[in-house]
Amino acid sequence: MRRALELAARAAALGEVPVGCVIVKGGVIAGEGFNCRESGKNALLHAELTAIAAACAALEGWRLCGCDMYVTLEPCAMCAGAAVNARIDGIVFAASDPKAGALGGRFDLLAHGLNHTPRVTGGVLAAEASALLTGFFRSLRGEKESVSE
Amino acid sequence: MRRALELAARAAALGEVPVGCVIVKGGVIAGEGFNCRESGKNALLHAELTAIAAACAALEGWRLCGCDMYVTLEPCAMCAGAAVNARIDGIVFAASDPKAGALGGRFDLLAHGLNHTPRVTGGVLAAEASALLTGFFRSLRGEKESVSE
Repeated sequence: MRRALELAARAAALGEVPVGCVIVKGGVIAGEGFNCRESGKNALLHAELTAIAAACAALEGWRLCGCDMYVTLEPCAMCAGAAVNARIDGIVFAASDPKAGALGGRFDLLAHGLNHTPRVTGGVLAAEASALLTGFFRSLRGEKESVSE
Repeated sequence: MRRALELAARAAALGEVPVGCVIVKGGVIAGEGFNCRESGKNALLHAELTAIAAACAALEGWRLCGCDMYVTLEPCAMCAGAAVNARIDGIVFAASDPKAGALGGRFDLLAHGLNHTPRVTGGVLAAEASALLTGFFRSLRGEKESVSE
């Protein structure tokens, strides 16, 4: 999760909502990514999807069995659904997302009996991930206020 | 939807589960794709995600406002979530998916008050899409049986 937080900070440096994600297999990073939806001009460029694509490429297959995902913000439906589709073993997230979180924050995708159910752990290094997000949005608001002055 | 069915047939020709998707804006195709998860060795290569990525590239932005998605099978959580994230106006699908469909087949993603709710229409050319899927799985089973003979 420390590496995922570093990646989130890289997203923030680009003016992107700071979310980072790492996929690990056997103690080794198989794929990683950070949110770059704005600069990449692509709705799919959440941290988790970039990390899943990288891990599939590295492991040469669409099944990420034996892999765990570490992400600094609770995944949305798209990203949690992608983790299910990729057969990821476990998802560990930091901050909860009451607006769009699909692992209990807004709703629980895994309560619907899909064909694969990753283990889920939330709240790991949540304070640090939340501080990154809060700082980012505060600085955005500050910029807007100074522009409107 | 006719074009989406043509794309689904291309997937079947590659030995992929036959699903095709087209994204339309103002009567013009902005992006399209077909499922190629096996040959692409990537869990993200559902028809809808490929079509969304193509449309974002063509329209040079992550917001696909004013776009409608036509897809031959009810989207899964990943793909329905991606359509929400991309702010797609409407989703029209053909066959329902009781195993993984996120727009009423298995569960209803849009019942959770997310920040965007596309209009949804199901059942358009459903018989043709279902025939493609049924034929594909029947031929897969046939191949397996003849191998095991």
